[in-house]
Amino acid sequence: MSRTVKLAIIPGDGIGAEVVAEAEKVLDAVTEGSGVAFDKTRFSLGAARYLETGDTLTDADLDAIKEHDAILLGAVGGVPGDPRLKDANIERGLLLKLRFSLDHYVNLRPSKLYVGAPGPLADPGEIDFVVVREGTEGPYVGNGGSIRTGTAQEVANETSVNTAFGIERVVRYAFDLAERRRQKLTLVHKTNVLVHAGGMWKRIVDQVAQEHPEVAVDYLHVDAATIFLVTNPGRFDVIVTDNLFGDILTDLAGAVTGGIGLAASGNINPDGAFPSMFEPVHGSAPDIAGQQKADPTAAILSVALMLDHLGLTGEAQRITRAVETDIAERGDASRTTAQVGDAIRTRLQA
Amino acid sequence: MSRTVKLAIIPGDGIGAEVVAEAEKVLDAVTEGSGVAFDKTRFSLGAARYLETGDTLTDADLDAIKEHDAILLGAVGGVPGDPRLKDANIERGLLLKLRFSLDHYVNLRPSKLYVGAPGPLADPGEIDFVVVREGTEGPYVGNGGSIRTGTAQEVANETSVNTAFGIERVVRYAFDLAERRRQKLTLVHKTNVLVHAGGMWKRIVDQVAQEHPEVAVDYLHVDAATIFLVTNPGRFDVIVTDNLFGDILTDLAGAVTGGIGLAASGNINPDGAFPSMFEPVHGSAPDIAGQQKADPTAAILSVALMLDHLGLTGEAQRITRAVETDIAERGDASRTTAQVGDAIRTRLQA
Ligand SMILES: CC(C)[C@H](C(=O)O)[C@@H](O)C(=O)O
Ligand SMILES: CC(C)[C@H](C(=O)O)[C@@H](O)C(=O)O
Repeated sequence: MSRTVKLAIIPGDGIGAEVVAEAEKVLDAVTEGSGVAFDKTRFSLGAARYLETGDTLTDADLDAIKEHDAILLGAVGGVPGDPRLKDANIERGLLLKLRFSLDHYVNLRPSKLYVGAPGPLADPGEIDFVVVREGTEGPYVGNGGSIRTGTAQEVANETSVNTAFGIERVVRYAFDLAERRRQKLTLVHKTNVLVHAGGMWKRIVDQVAQEHPEVAVDYLHVDAATIFLVTNPGRFDVIVTDNLFGDILTDLAGAVTGGIGLAASGNINPDGAFPSMFEPVHGSAPDIAGQQKADPTAAILSVALMLDHLGLTGEAQRITRAVETDIAERGDASRTTAQVGDAIRTRLQA
Repeated sequence: MSRTVKLAIIPGDGIGAEVVAEAEKVLDAVTEGSGVAFDKTRFSLGAARYLETGDTLTDADLDAIKEHDAILLGAVGGVPGDPRLKDANIERGLLLKLRFSLDHYVNLRPSKLYVGAPGPLADPGEIDFVVVREGTEGPYVGNGGSIRTGTAQEVANETSVNTAFGIERVVRYAFDLAERRRQKLTLVHKTNVLVHAGGMWKRIVDQVAQEHPEVAVDYLHVDAATIFLVTNPGRFDVIVTDNLFGDILTDLAGAVTGGIGLAASGNINPDGAFPSMFEPVHGSAPDIAGQQKADPTAAILSVALMLDHLGLTGEAQRITRAVETDIAERGDASRTTAQVGDAIRTRLQA
């Protein structure tokens, strides 16, 4: 009963390597003796690689990555304003290209306020929801362009593309998740302005809702949703939303639950046709890179999401519990990236 | 030295009429004996009018409104889910039609945390910034459509249209405002994903910045901006952003500064070719309509923005100060809509 998981690791730029090192530490510890071996391949991708070779993500890279069962990514992105990166868009060329090429149509972002986590809200109450962000459509498709670029007559368009196929599959995923949680689903969009895309989201949610009579469904405009995230985040269980709204809501959600240093995410292809990818929500933070200042917790929780996705739910829970205890007891002491990883690893063994 | 201002009043739906009544009360009191007379015309527009006549905003309505110097609007929108409104989109057909037809390219939304205002943040610090939201372009233009609508093969697109002309004028307005404030301007967009529109915004901000060497300029992605709004709102002075991002940020900003019941806004045509329109950021709240439960403060502060726009800065300041004192001293006592209006009017006279 031994199983081998082929894991692609993309440490990336900035603090990526540091947080991924701790994530691996915890992964190794939790799977030790479990009968599951992780066969790791490291991919050197990101701004650094681009500066060296001019490549962001080649077809060969992509083909090699596809040979894996899962991907663990640290963070990508060079120093903002670096003139050598002026014509590169590492985010689009690497991160979004991976999400789109690997059909990561579920961008799963849990938000939980752990006991002891420092948050900005005076009276947060219990916060425990999951944002199911669509990952392959919407304003992220790259269907934009401009004419008379750089002149006073420039016109630049960006087109959000949305399909019933793409919405239905992510909505179904969200309802299934809501069934396993507190049976509440909130659609977030802006139907009164984006009437065509919004109307389709609403129609499909209403249709799929009929198959889930136990799930209570409501709808919020994205602007109103941000209000509730700071005044009553406890009202949310599962949020399903489009790519751009999901991007915005999950950063805000990360902030209200103690900071983006704790926020994990999975870019999931539920069909299993392509490997899913797990990454902290935070960026590469080049300003603190290499200084052991980054909190690896988000990367470690991303490993838990990965293990859960791979069916290793017991191992995933052990990590989550170890993190929970670590947060509850961490206090104000400042620790290095490695110290946080070590502490969580130690708690695993407890 | 008498002057007459022709004011169009659109109470609208739900709590609109109640909050506008208090706004008028305060307007009348502050301009009494000032030599400026307000010649008011009331327009019955909104969901109620639509249900009666089938009209949302006719050409005749629009022509009549254009004859005025300014517009005061309460709130529009019927009861959510009202089947009779199924095919109407009062927001698009009335509110957005007014903003677009009257070329309200500056949507001005100040955010200030008044002493005594209840906010959700544990440690908000001083909050005093203004969002300059573009009002006539972006994803709000209505350039969307769908094919195979209602089927499993539906494709729905929404196109954000952005012009150098449209961006430059609102960016110039924002820089001028920053000059008169704390000389700080933050562009919010999502340049790493919406590369064409975002790139143009960035380029124009960089260009206009050269004419304002005293103004410190920075840039935030919209997702990061929401984080700062809850972790360090004091960092903002003037935010300039597109129509959709401005919609989202200002609701969140309203929430962190004590609720949408205090948030005022101006839809401004700085050229003066068309009347500008002033309205609370909140909606029509049909659930509490007619119950004297709504806070008219946002509508009253919208009158102050209007007076300021009309050059009646002394009167505008008197209102702002009266509101400030009222908020500082209001405590927890629950007051009716009219009682709040009366209290603010009384403080004006002090
Ligand atoms: C880096 C960027 C392209 C990305 C996104 O917008 O999706 C990030 O903000 C995220 O949320 O993962
Ligand atoms: C009602 C709606 C169309 C409007 C908008 O999105 O602009 C509102 O949310 C606002 O912010 O004034």
